[in-house]
Order: sequence, then structure tokens, then C-alpha cells
Amino acid sequence: MIKARVIVTLKNGVLDPQGKAIEGALGGLGFDGVGSVRQGKVFDVELSSTDAANAEAEIKAMCDKLLANTVIENYSVTLI
Amino acid sequence: MIKARVIVTLKNGVLDPQGKAIEGALGGLGFDGVGSVRQGKVFDVELSSTDAANAEAEIKAMCDKLLANTVIENYSVTLI
Repeated sequence: MIKARVIVTLKNGVLDPQGKAIEGALGGLGFDGVGSVRQGKVFDVELSSTDAANAEAEIKAMCDKLLANTVIENYSVTLI
Repeated sequence: MIKARVIVTLKNGVLDPQGKAIEGALGGLGFDGVGSVRQGKVFDVELSSTDAANAEAEIKAMCDKLLANTVIENYSVTLI
């Protein structure tokens, strides 16, 4: 069994209202010196496959088809 | 300026309906051999601070106060 972690983040230049809201909230809580905050998603996926190269290719296909919107998002895959 | 990445994941045993939905959707797309899927959040935070130890402590305080619900979630902080 192979475990993979997929991190999906917005591309640079794409507006992130959720991140902006968190930025404001942190300021309101008294955290000064916070520059930008960007929020993304993380997926921990377990695969029954035992071949790492195969698993990574499969995870990338999942990202392209479902997990990430590649028009506005980047993703990175790490096998754990 | 220091950049930090915070990864917030659900603790083991906490139900993750969103992850289950993704699991089902991946199966429907023809990806066999997908075990469990768990979804979490990632925050990329920029701090104006230049002291790494200080920055890490500040980020942890942010997690405890706002970014994570420590009753049901774990978080990990990595300085980039």
C-alpha cells in the first residue's frame, strides 16, 4: 500500500478571497507582520498499488481529472 | 521575510465526509485501488519577521487560535 500527499494551491495572480479573509482575521487577533495568506487543499490518498512510479502516475491523473482545476491551480505530489 | 506552510489535517478517527465523497468520485472515474482519501487544508503564510524561531512560535499561536480546530485537527508547520 502506498500513501501519497497531494497539495493543491492557487496559481500566482489568482485572487484568493479566503486567504484575504484569514489575513484580516489574523490582524484582528493582534498578529502583526502577517504578509499575504493563501489557502490551498491537501489530500492524503491511500493506493493499493505497490509500484511507486505507477502510483505517482495514477495520482497525477487523479489530479488532472478531479482533484485540481489546472486552469487556476498547481498541484504537487509526494509519496509518503 | 519568512514564508511558512501550515498543513491542517483531521485527526485519525474523525469522520471526513468530504474525503469519502472524493473516494466515491475517484471510483466512479475508473480509478480502482483507491483506499481512503482524507482532505485537509494548507495555508501559505508570509511573515515580515526575520527570526525563524520567533516566526515559528507565532505561526503556532495562529494555528491554535484560528487556523486549526485542535479538538479535531492536527497541524504541522514548515518554514520554506
